Amino acid sequence: MKSVIHVITPIVTAGFRSINDFEPCCRSDLEVTHSLLEIGPASIESEFDEALSVPDTIRRAIEAERAGAHAIVIDCMGDPGLSACREAVSIPVLGPCQTAAHVATMLGHKFSFVTVLDRLRPMIDHIVSGYGLSSSYAGFAAINIPVLEILHDMDKLGSALAVKARQTVVEDHAGAIVLGCTGFLGLAEKIEKALAADGLHVPVIDAIPLTIRMADTLVKCGLSHSKHIYPLPGKKAIAGYSMPDLWG
Amino acid sequence: MKSVIHVITPIVTAGFRSINDFEPCCRSDLEVTHSLLEIGPASIESEFDEALSVPDTIRRAIEAERAGAHAIVIDCMGDPGLSACREAVSIPVLGPCQTAAHVATMLGHKFSFVTVLDRLRPMIDHIVSGYGLSSSYAGFAAINIPVLEILHDMDKLGSALAVKARQTVVEDHAGAIVLGCTGFLGLAEKIEKALAADGLHVPVIDAIPLTIRMADTLVKCGLSHSKHIYPLPGKKAIAGYSMPDLWG
Amino acid sequence: MKSVIHVITPIVTAGFRSINDFEPCCRSDLEVTHSLLEIGPASIESEFDEALSVPDTIRRAIEAERAGAHAIVIDCMGDPGLSACREAVSIPVLGPCQTAAHVATMLGHKFSFVTVLDRLRPMIDHIVSGYGLSSSYAGFAAINIPVLEILHDMDKLGSALAVKARQTVVEDHAGAIVLGCTGFLGLAEKIEKALAADGLHVPVIDAIPLTIRMADTLVKCGLSHSKHIYPLPGKKAIAGYSMPDLWG
Amino acid sequence: MKSVIHVITPIVTAGFRSINDFEPCCRSDLEVTHSLLEIGPASIESEFDEALSVPDTIRRAIEAERAGAHAIVIDCMGDPGLSACREAVSIPVLGPCQTAAHVATMLGHKFSFVTVLDRLRPMIDHIVSGYGLSSSYAGFAAINIPVLEILHDMDKLGSALAVKARQTVVEDHAGAIVLGCTGFLGLAEKIEKALAADGLHVPVIDAIPLTIRMADTLVKCGLSHSKHIYPLPGKKAIAGYSMPDLWG
Amino acid sequence: MKSVIHVITPIVTAGFRSINDFEPCCRSDLEVTHSLLEIGPASIESEFDEALSVPDTIRRAIEAERAGAHAIVIDCMGDPGLSACREAVSIPVLGPCQTAAHVATMLGHKFSFVTVLDRLRPMIDHIVSGYGLSSSYAGFAAINIPVLEILHDMDKLGSALAVKARQTVVEDHAGAIVLGCTGFLGLAEKIEKALAADGLHVPVIDAIPLTIRMADTLVKCGLSHSKHIYPLPGKKAIAGYSMPDLWG
Amino acid sequence: MKSVIHVITPIVTAGFRSINDFEPCCRSDLEVTHSLLEIGPASIESEFDEALSVPDTIRRAIEAERAGAHAIVIDCMGDPGLSACREAVSIPVLGPCQTAAHVATMLGHKFSFVTVLDRLRPMIDHIVSGYGLSSSYAGFAAINIPVLEILHDMDKLGSALAVKARQTVVEDHAGAIVLGCTGFLGLAEKIEKALAADGLHVPVIDAIPLTIRMADTLVKCGLSHSKHIYPLPGKKAIAGYSMPDLWG
Repeated sequence: MKSVIHVITPIVTAGFRSINDFEPCCRSDLEVTHSLLEIGPASIESEFDEALSVPDTIRRAIEAERAGAHAIVIDCMGDPGLSACREAVSIPVLGPCQTAAHVATMLGHKFSFVTVLDRLRPMIDHIVSGYGLSSSYAGFAAINIPVLEILHDMDKLGSALAVKARQTVVEDHAGAIVLGCTGFLGLAEKIEKALAADGLHVPVIDAIPLTIRMADTLVKCGLSHSKHIYPLPGKKAIAGYSMPDLWG
Repeated sequence: MKSVIHVITPIVTAGFRSINDFEPCCRSDLEVTHSLLEIGPASIESEFDEALSVPDTIRRAIEAERAGAHAIVIDCMGDPGLSACREAVSIPVLGPCQTAAHVATMLGHKFSFVTVLDRLRPMIDHIVSGYGLSSSYAGFAAINIPVLEILHDMDKLGSALAVKARQTVVEDHAGAIVLGCTGFLGLAEKIEKALAADGLHVPVIDAIPLTIRMADTLVKCGLSHSKHIYPLPGKKAIAGYSMPDLWG
Repeated sequence: MKSVIHVITPIVTAGFRSINDFEPCCRSDLEVTHSLLEIGPASIESEFDEALSVPDTIRRAIEAERAGAHAIVIDCMGDPGLSACREAVSIPVLGPCQTAAHVATMLGHKFSFVTVLDRLRPMIDHIVSGYGLSSSYAGFAAINIPVLEILHDMDKLGSALAVKARQTVVEDHAGAIVLGCTGFLGLAEKIEKALAADGLHVPVIDAIPLTIRMADTLVKCGLSHSKHIYPLPGKKAIAGYSMPDLWG
Repeated sequence: MKSVIHVITPIVTAGFRSINDFEPCCRSDLEVTHSLLEIGPASIESEFDEALSVPDTIRRAIEAERAGAHAIVIDCMGDPGLSACREAVSIPVLGPCQTAAHVATMLGHKFSFVTVLDRLRPMIDHIVSGYGLSSSYAGFAAINIPVLEILHDMDKLGSALAVKARQTVVEDHAGAIVLGCTGFLGLAEKIEKALAADGLHVPVIDAIPLTIRMADTLVKCGLSHSKHIYPLPGKKAIAGYSMPDLWG
Repeated sequence: MKSVIHVITPIVTAGFRSINDFEPCCRSDLEVTHSLLEIGPASIESEFDEALSVPDTIRRAIEAERAGAHAIVIDCMGDPGLSACREAVSIPVLGPCQTAAHVATMLGHKFSFVTVLDRLRPMIDHIVSGYGLSSSYAGFAAINIPVLEILHDMDKLGSALAVKARQTVVEDHAGAIVLGCTGFLGLAEKIEKALAADGLHVPVIDAIPLTIRMADTLVKCGLSHSKHIYPLPGKKAIAGYSMPDLWG
Repeated sequence: MKSVIHVITPIVTAGFRSINDFEPCCRSDLEVTHSLLEIGPASIESEFDEALSVPDTIRRAIEAERAGAHAIVIDCMGDPGLSACREAVSIPVLGPCQTAAHVATMLGHKFSFVTVLDRLRPMIDHIVSGYGLSSSYAGFAAINIPVLEILHDMDKLGSALAVKARQTVVEDHAGAIVLGCTGFLGLAEKIEKALAADGLHVPVIDAIPLTIRMADTLVKCGLSHSKHIYPLPGKKAIAGYSMPDLWG
């Protein structure tokens, strides 16, 4: 049986992701599809941005299930709309933050987030605690360099992230690193090697490839989230959104 | 100085709230104003409903601050949009769930939620843990009677809630009860008396009057949420929402 | 209805507090009264001092309730006698430490204590954990300057506290500061401004005005602590204290 | 070297304890001495009673150290004055609640308190959490039979406690029982046998003999509490207590 | 690239597992190999049994890595030797308990263990807490029917497990069930259907297929456990075991 | 009654321990006996080493109980085989890590481990969390000097440990130090004095003398671990170990 994993990038900006980004995850029995939002923010760097991304993420999730996807991955480290999407659909919905945080705990006992902006610290703290992983959360480190100065220069970005990763491994005793932005796709190996060159053999997690493969693992196991915990929303009027009818 | 506390009822249904509901909270130096949503669900009973209520709640919060309100209260026990609103404005934004849970902890050491629907259990669990109050959370009890059968009969509703409140006091050792729906406004006293008649002297918290007065307390103390923790969102394009310009 | 909030300063030293200190909290329907101890220590800076302050604090609480007060505030950041007073009376009894710690958690996600003496660290740690707030407690910082050198110079004291506050915001990621001594009354605004001047917009809590207003909020809401959790002590002989008869 | 362990029974009631009660703990190199209070309650069953017992307990601790005792045991399951006494003296001060709770955790993974009055539940909960043992605390069970009806009939008392102990082992999965009143001295063996007769092989801890022997263990190891954590109180005036001069 | 996942069944009993048991997990690029122990217990139902299984499990892990396996799965819900094997080898080593507990937390917020023997409760409790998942652990339920009476009758076993699973979902609010014995292979679907027939839509996790696929996911992602946390053991003499030379 | 405490040093290296090491613990009614392993590692510095030490430690425990010992102490700070030995025998089995960690919590509120190798950090972290003491665990510090360079020079070792102890007291706010290697026997007093010379009056725990005396305390109190929590293993075939018959 072939799994179709649908990735929703919960922003309206075309060009940030290409379907080729997910190519390395594909197998003879694993296919990836992709969608963007029509309503929402250009990027996500705050609770405000997240809030605006959720309604259309839910719509995309419902559409993907109806189109025959076997699982959904929300392509943002804040896991926006994870619980609401799980209520709306029955196929597995995975967030890269939840998935990477659990796997990092398994591999390294304690893990740290390494990302761009210090302002995300309380948001990540809140998310990790909601996932029940506070006791395994070693720390948070941000490069605090304006993104625009650095995103065009992936080498410089990787080096800056490696410096922060090394610091949190040494000071906070992290045993695994979760890269805190899905835009860092492809940098994990470089950072892992930089740490290893200093004798720090610590896994660095690129959450999107992991989460796509984990979604496939759940599909192959016949597992999904609990509909007892995430039941279908009750039927009611909704003003201002063109949401597919959940109760038809 | 007179405080103006703006209450946002984050649903689109007219008639659920009247400004008179907040009358008992008013004082010579405390005024309450009120708004509903234009975009969002008819009522909130799921993560899905919450997600759809947040964008327009943020808009209402920004408008209220610009209109001169001194603090904002979100009138729903799920505290939808609390963090996002705090990013968007500088005046205090309070959620009744957070406020009632903290005050209940102060008054009763451990508290329970008593509400209508069992399906809200994981949502409340998640919220309480995000507020750092898991160790003070005694339990959750729901009457599990269809709301439509009972909301027209406040006496029957009060009695059903009192039965569940008594049970969680005795079995879960709750020292305070938080009523888990802002629609229960006015029932706290009746339930408290029913418990006291059984020798169980436990405060029962009607969260909205408490939260309005707490908002006033913060205003009078010159306190608001930390803008270090809830910084203004970064400027970016937003598609599909008519949000006031935060960066103008 | 006018609330009468009775403040007990749990030391025997006249002159430390004047009724004027509480003037800014008064409103047309909120009055503050005040008492000192006759039996107890000159000041409170240890568990030993606290222990000696509690019996007469209880007496003052019983007297205040009998004199018609609607709520009691214990004017010391160690909240001495909070539980025992709650057993002895039915009107709300609030401690500034408990109140400030809960409000700080609400406003800043995580909070730090900033105070004079490093020796109070384990005491505050113990208190905060007893309030169920350990997971929101970011840190503790003390100026470690002899009090006598500095208490006559409130400017110097404020500056020293601001340095420590800044440090715990940056290093421990506190989102709110609780001033750890009720003797710092009036310094919060200065410290908050000093932090803001460094771009750290963090609320600084002066616990006594907050706690008086919170006491009023509880009175107006008809709420008090749970007598199920803090029941009246059983009747028995007491040697060596002239305690009002609780069981008469 | 002979250890002298001084037991302070922190009440004013003569006859509750005899020095013979401690006889079984004595060894060729372990002697027990004993004192009662002159100022304080007749018995301890509330936070109020505890508060009134602490000042004279401190005095007795200081006197015992000056009289040459090597360690002090506070003979009440609420451990009244434990921290304050540790500040006042340098020899080890032990509380039976703290000692028994730690040893019960070691022996049974999780433990329950079994005692007479249900009203002590929040007090014990607070104490156990202050000792950092919440995660090992399985439950609390009280016989809820008026003490006066039963204390003259130790057989009946033992049977009632055994019923509750059995219940908390089965329902709360306790692996050890701490008897929650030092007045139950001598009942542990009977209750342990009653449990064993039902196939529940669970240690039942009589805290006073354990704590006396643990005090001796500390003395023999040259260990005491940390004076860094429990420093000598600062010198100051004290009104209304005839406390030995700590700073002479 | 084809992953070779080596499953070690850490007992000496031939016939308990066949390579066919793992057939459903295989894919065009995923192969499973298998080994038993030569030194160890006939089955594992205690800490004692586990301890005796670990040394030869380590040997099997070292051999598997040298034979070219890409990851190792320890086929016992107690995860015996997980940390020691991770020290000894560099390829991923997974335990079904750790893997299933993390995935159950992701899918159901809180999970319960359902197994045969009540005696495993403290062992599972200890393991789950070591994995940092205590706050997501809802409960433990055992069928308490002698295994020998039931293991030949998988239908009866499935029914007995379903009864306990239903009970822990309803009473402990578990949102996912982890089957607590790798010998229950194949029963998950039946139990899940029995729960769903009662309206309880809760995932039931058969840990071995999940763990094999998770091992493959890690291999495909290039991830393994942290050698910083699980470093190669220091070289030293070992008496009485024929362990492959780790330091050659 | 004389207690016989049997110490098992869980390594195969003769000469590391002499019976004289335990001499200072002996009393007229307390005798210590001692054994080494025949199967196992030369020393213990990893999970791998521990795993290889456990089977023969269990054998020694069973033999000691049969030879009439009243309690068993496992002479290694990793407490190898503690749970398995408790299943195998009925007399108390104590580990120095568990005992020292609990006593350190009692004496100093929070404690740190100070030891030789940084690699033990996750192992100690895991052990402490399994004992339910995470909230009292202040930190871990290692001297990171090759053991061979320093073990012949106990003065240099003591000085290095004192430096690290001082650091964790000041930075992590530890109130007690647990020496993290049983090979440090005799160094506690020197380190305690070095700390005191800096004004840091913190107990430093030499775990073996403490644990032997604690074992005696349990024997004298008639206490042992719970056989409800650590039941006798079920009877089954064991291959490759010559274990005494537990079920004969």
